[in-house]
Amino acid sequence: MSSKAPIGVFDSGVGGLTVVKEIMNQIPGETIIYFGDTARLPYGSKSRETIITYTRQIIRFLMGKEVKAIVVACNTASAFALETVRKEFDIPMLGVVKPGARVAAATTKNGNIGVIGTEGTIRSGIYNEYLSEINPRVKVYGKACPLFVPLVEEGLIDDPVTMEMARRYIGELIVHDIDTLVLGCTHYPLLRKTLRKIIGDNIQMVNPAYETAKALKQVLADHNLENDDTLKTDHKFFVSDGAEKFKKFANSILPCEVVETKDVNIENY
Amino acid sequence: MSSKAPIGVFDSGVGGLTVVKEIMNQIPGETIIYFGDTARLPYGSKSRETIITYTRQIIRFLMGKEVKAIVVACNTASAFALETVRKEFDIPMLGVVKPGARVAAATTKNGNIGVIGTEGTIRSGIYNEYLSEINPRVKVYGKACPLFVPLVEEGLIDDPVTMEMARRYIGELIVHDIDTLVLGCTHYPLLRKTLRKIIGDNIQMVNPAYETAKALKQVLADHNLENDDTLKTDHKFFVSDGAEKFKKFANSILPCEVVETKDVNIENY
Repeated sequence: MSSKAPIGVFDSGVGGLTVVKEIMNQIPGETIIYFGDTARLPYGSKSRETIITYTRQIIRFLMGKEVKAIVVACNTASAFALETVRKEFDIPMLGVVKPGARVAAATTKNGNIGVIGTEGTIRSGIYNEYLSEINPRVKVYGKACPLFVPLVEEGLIDDPVTMEMARRYIGELIVHDIDTLVLGCTHYPLLRKTLRKIIGDNIQMVNPAYETAKALKQVLADHNLENDDTLKTDHKFFVSDGAEKFKKFANSILPCEVVETKDVNIENY
Repeated sequence: MSSKAPIGVFDSGVGGLTVVKEIMNQIPGETIIYFGDTARLPYGSKSRETIITYTRQIIRFLMGKEVKAIVVACNTASAFALETVRKEFDIPMLGVVKPGARVAAATTKNGNIGVIGTEGTIRSGIYNEYLSEINPRVKVYGKACPLFVPLVEEGLIDDPVTMEMARRYIGELIVHDIDTLVLGCTHYPLLRKTLRKIIGDNIQMVNPAYETAKALKQVLADHNLENDDTLKTDHKFFVSDGAEKFKKFANSILPCEVVETKDVNIENY
C-alpha cells in the first residue's frame, strides 16, 4: 500500500464532513475520498444488521478507489458495524467512538458524562461500554436526539426551532449534573453554537471529530503510511443521492472548495 | 382471486395508517395487510430508481401474503413508482395521488391549489401533471416540507416546534392566494389541527387518504372483490424496523387495536 494513496471517509450524509475538516486541518498532506450515504440516511433509526450491510457496501466501494485507510466517520456505524467489518477487510480502519470516549474520560472532573447521539448510538450503549473500560467509576447519561440530523440536513443550524429542540434534549441531561457533553453524532458539531448557548460555560463539549483526526494521524504513522505532500491533494466526494445539495453543504463547511460531487449506486457494491 | 383475501397497503412508515384508518371506516369488511418501510424511511429525499426498487420488493412481499389488491399509501412511491410497477404485476393497484388530485380540482373555486409534500413528491410535479389533465386552467403551487415526516415520526404532532415549521412552509403558499391545500404526504393528515390553525377557515384541506379509500371501494366493486364480512377481519402489520415503536403509534391512530407488529427483512424480497 502506497503512502500516496488517499484516505476513505464515510458517513450517512454530510455529518462526516466535520471529521474531514479536522483531517484537512491536522494532516493537510492527506487526500480524502469521501462517501455520504444520503440515499439511505438516517442511519440512527436503523437496526444493527442493516447498518452492517450498508457499511460493507461502502467499504467495498472505497477499497475500489484504492484507499490506504478507512475512517468510519459515523457514530452509528462505528457502534454497530466497526467491530464486525474490521475482521472482514484487510485495511487499517478506525471509528469515531473510541477516540471520543478517550477524551471524554480525560475531560470529566466529577465523573458525570452526557452523551447525545442518534437512537442507534444511544441504544447500543457503546459510549458507556468504552468509558467504563477506561474508568469504571464514570457515570454515563445518554440522550437520543432524533431530530438533530434532519434539522442539520435541512440547513437549520442556527435557528430558533433547533434551539428549542436542543433545549428539550439537553434539559434531560443537565439534571444529572454532567460536566462533560460528548457530541456523539458527526452532525452535531455543526450545532456547537446552539448547544453552547444551552449548556453555558461550565460543561465541556467533546468533539470526537477532532480526536478521530488525531487518532488517524497516529494510525498512519504506525503503518508508515503518512503523506505530507500538501501540493498534490485531490479530494473526491461521492454520495448515493442528491450530489448538488451535498456539494453546496460541503462548500459551506470545508476549508477547501468542493468542485464536484458524484452520485454512486451504492447498492451495487 | 378470492374476495375474502386481504388488501395490501404500504408506506415508508406510519403515514399510510391514515389511509388504513379511512379504509377501516369506509369499507369495514376488508382485512388489511400493512407494510411500513421504517428501516428505509424517509422516501421523500430518495431518487426515483431507489423508490422503484423498494416498491417492487414490498409488492413481492405483499403478494406473498395473497392480497387481492394493493394500495400504494405513499405519495412519493405513487409519484415515482406506481406507473412502472403497475405494468409488472398482475393485481389491481392504486395510489394516493390521483384520488387526491381529483378532489382538489373539484374543490378549488379560484383555481389556485397549494400542494405540500416531500421533496420527491414536489420535485416530481405529479400533482401538477394530474391536475392539469383534469383542468388546464388550474394553477398548482408546490412546497416541500422535509421536516414534517421526522416530526410526525417523533410524535411531535401537536407541538410548538411543528407549528413554527408549518408557519414557515405554509407561509410560502398563502401568498399565492390558494383556496385549496392538498396534504400530499400520508403523514400530513396527522398534522391537520396544526395546519388548520395556520391556514384559517377560508382554505379547504384535501386529504387524499379519504379519497383513496373511496377509490379503493370502487376498484374492488369493479373486480367483484368486495368483502363485507365485518366479523372476520384479521388485520396484520409488518415493518422493516422498530416493530414496537410502530405498534404504539398505530394504536394511537387506528380505530382497532393492533395486537402484534412483525419485523420483516424486506431486502430479501
